[in-house]
Amino acid sequence: MDVWDAVVVGAGVAGLVAARDLVQGGAEVLVLEARDRVGGRLLNDELPGGAPIEVGGQWVGPGQDRALALINALGLRTYPTYVDGEHIAEMGSFRSQYTGRIPRLNPLVLADIGQAQYRLDRLARQVAATDPWRAPRAEELDTQTFDTWLRKTAHTAGGRAFFRLVTEGVFSAEPEDMSALWAAFYVGGAGGLDALINTAGGAQQDRVVGGTQRIALGLAEQLGDRVVLDAPVTDIDWQTSGVRVVTRNGLTVRARRAVVAVPPPLAARIRFTPGLPGDRDQLVQRMPMGRVIKVNVAYDEPFWRHAGLSGQANSTDRPLGTVFDNTPFGGSPGVLVGFLEGRHADAGARMDLDARRAQVIDDLVGYFGPRAGNPLAYIERDWAEEEYSRGCYGAFAVPGTLTRFGPALRSPVGPLHWAGTETATNWAGYIDGAAESGHRVAGEVLPELS
Amino acid sequence: MDVWDAVVVGAGVAGLVAARDLVQGGAEVLVLEARDRVGGRLLNDELPGGAPIEVGGQWVGPGQDRALALINALGLRTYPTYVDGEHIAEMGSFRSQYTGRIPRLNPLVLADIGQAQYRLDRLARQVAATDPWRAPRAEELDTQTFDTWLRKTAHTAGGRAFFRLVTEGVFSAEPEDMSALWAAFYVGGAGGLDALINTAGGAQQDRVVGGTQRIALGLAEQLGDRVVLDAPVTDIDWQTSGVRVVTRNGLTVRARRAVVAVPPPLAARIRFTPGLPGDRDQLVQRMPMGRVIKVNVAYDEPFWRHAGLSGQANSTDRPLGTVFDNTPFGGSPGVLVGFLEGRHADAGARMDLDARRAQVIDDLVGYFGPRAGNPLAYIERDWAEEEYSRGCYGAFAVPGTLTRFGPALRSPVGPLHWAGTETATNWAGYIDGAAESGHRVAGEVLPELS
Repeated sequence: MDVWDAVVVGAGVAGLVAARDLVQGGAEVLVLEARDRVGGRLLNDELPGGAPIEVGGQWVGPGQDRALALINALGLRTYPTYVDGEHIAEMGSFRSQYTGRIPRLNPLVLADIGQAQYRLDRLARQVAATDPWRAPRAEELDTQTFDTWLRKTAHTAGGRAFFRLVTEGVFSAEPEDMSALWAAFYVGGAGGLDALINTAGGAQQDRVVGGTQRIALGLAEQLGDRVVLDAPVTDIDWQTSGVRVVTRNGLTVRARRAVVAVPPPLAARIRFTPGLPGDRDQLVQRMPMGRVIKVNVAYDEPFWRHAGLSGQANSTDRPLGTVFDNTPFGGSPGVLVGFLEGRHADAGARMDLDARRAQVIDDLVGYFGPRAGNPLAYIERDWAEEEYSRGCYGAFAVPGTLTRFGPALRSPVGPLHWAGTETATNWAGYIDGAAESGHRVAGEVLPELS
Repeated sequence: MDVWDAVVVGAGVAGLVAARDLVQGGAEVLVLEARDRVGGRLLNDELPGGAPIEVGGQWVGPGQDRALALINALGLRTYPTYVDGEHIAEMGSFRSQYTGRIPRLNPLVLADIGQAQYRLDRLARQVAATDPWRAPRAEELDTQTFDTWLRKTAHTAGGRAFFRLVTEGVFSAEPEDMSALWAAFYVGGAGGLDALINTAGGAQQDRVVGGTQRIALGLAEQLGDRVVLDAPVTDIDWQTSGVRVVTRNGLTVRARRAVVAVPPPLAARIRFTPGLPGDRDQLVQRMPMGRVIKVNVAYDEPFWRHAGLSGQANSTDRPLGTVFDNTPFGGSPGVLVGFLEGRHADAGARMDLDARRAQVIDDLVGYFGPRAGNPLAYIERDWAEEEYSRGCYGAFAVPGTLTRFGPALRSPVGPLHWAGTETATNWAGYIDGAAESGHRVAGEVLPELS
């Protein structure tokens, strides 16, 4: 092809959905992917015995209609995250085992969490998904960190610790890292905090048989040789009529439009000629990635189930603050997945592998007893070390960013269009948001081609 | 040279001072500069009649010992910023003309500003220049924006408007953009807020005859053909024993050590192989540049002086919030320099040149009367549009950054060393900080070469 209709940069879900929609609309499309694989932040690894296990994004849940439609269209199946039995919650030195949604806690703390969540959900409903920078209190919210907002809203030490844990679990960032407006936008885009943090009924409800990377693999299969791997884009020269995209290994692609489907801090590392407008450049300087080390630990069987435990555990004090049963479809081997998030990822990354592994196993023993000390396998992934992700789960906006530069998130610049889960209006940070952004950007580009 | 002792990336003051110190220490050094000129954020333009005028950084003041020593060593001279006569201050609809440091204001507002400045200065003294992340209240300060801190500290609307204006003037950013810990560190590194905002006795006290870019030009002259222009570094491959640096136009340089002397968001755009540790990468994702459009407006003479005005004007309401007499050494033509900073730069950049120019002139007429409406020349520079600066005056740390990633600002990674004014302990954002960082990094590298 001499001049493609569109070139897509990045073969994560956003880029692949965009490419598939464009192809379905009759366009000639090429996808350039930096890595030797598709999927971006979705990645399968292998457990002892060969079952697939996700070391990246892995859950879907109700309300994520675009992700679920995609899974369905690709002929993939979902299965529920294991939730039977009692969950473990450690708040400071207080440990409880509970069923349902709410741990047994000091009633004052419970009441505090309840009223703060009520206020957060109410705030989130006031922040429009499409233009949060126009919310009634946008300026007030964007001048403060989410931590500042939480300190004013939650009044007990336990309540504040709970919301720090939740922030780490949802954003793999600390409450002080992000704008309160971004936090409200993100909660609103999911339909409320419960939807973000729940397993059954929430964003962790279901898993994909064979692992979520199969979504990307399925899309890539449909696109066939339109997807070029090992092609890291370094330069995009552009003018109104089209683009010239150059990869590090010397491939040059001409196209009428470009879809950039990589996270904002990585989009900042592509050299555009002419340079992008100040608004767009300032935006991508101000949306850092969260930081997480994801750990899957395999055992010969899911022994916690026999003890009446669900495998779900949380702690405001342990580095491994959030754990779920991650046993694959089929039931073997038993797997616990845990997350070192935000500051815990910082500390974890500064350890050597042996020390980090020992700390993780120690936390699992603390939650589930001595049998957790004898794993079959320990599989970890530090996403901040990945050159083509540089963090997970997603990017967030720091204070002052959405109100000053928000529209630049999605506004095309000449022939350049922006996709990626961070550009979504709902579930911005999830597979669903990635799919939304892919559909949206294809809808922008197709009319330009006719 | 087959393998240089050190390659320096960036020929701003930081890189040039580092290179000169290294050469004086006996090292074989090559400096790679992306632009077709040296100086980075220091840049001379020309007034009608040929006198030089700075469109970038331009002042030096007491306490900036490294910058002053550099100017002296290069045989350059300074002269005082013109300050005779009355300054203009507009706070909301209230206009005053005053001499000395303090405008005539509502006494309640004056008292509020006084107590808040006292608190800020006291706080700044508690934050060590070398490791602000270890300050007694570091975590508390780094979980909030500077705006949040100011709202708790200044109690009148006038006081808050004053500190917003000051923040814009000092950082070309808004108070909500940065961590309160970064603000305190920055104020402390200057020795207090007065030192940052004052003309006589402060950071705007003196100017360099011939313009500040002569500092960079003088250093480059000493370095001779060791400085290579038009050589944008795209890739740095590194191992313990050395580096291989590649420029966009195909130059490849091998060296035992590399000094990266560009601002953090631009350092993030260099591709390192192997990739940098997560701490370093996360840091550079979280230090965006301020945004400023600097405007010099020339008149046949400095007419305001005849009216008993100093040319210094400030307004909490006008986009052009800060103005100084910027008449060059020699006294002709008359020049007023003004700044569109932070949100005012956003708005200004979204206008076309004619509208922006009209708005600037309108503000100058508002300050200085109708004669300001007939300029000889209008010279502007939007630093966020500059590919190899992407903002000014400097980068700042967003909340959560210094406490989580602060040490990565200066910690070498293998053969890679970090310079640039943002890595300074004092005057981080000024010529002085750039010089400090150049000296420091040369001191790191020289022992490694022996």
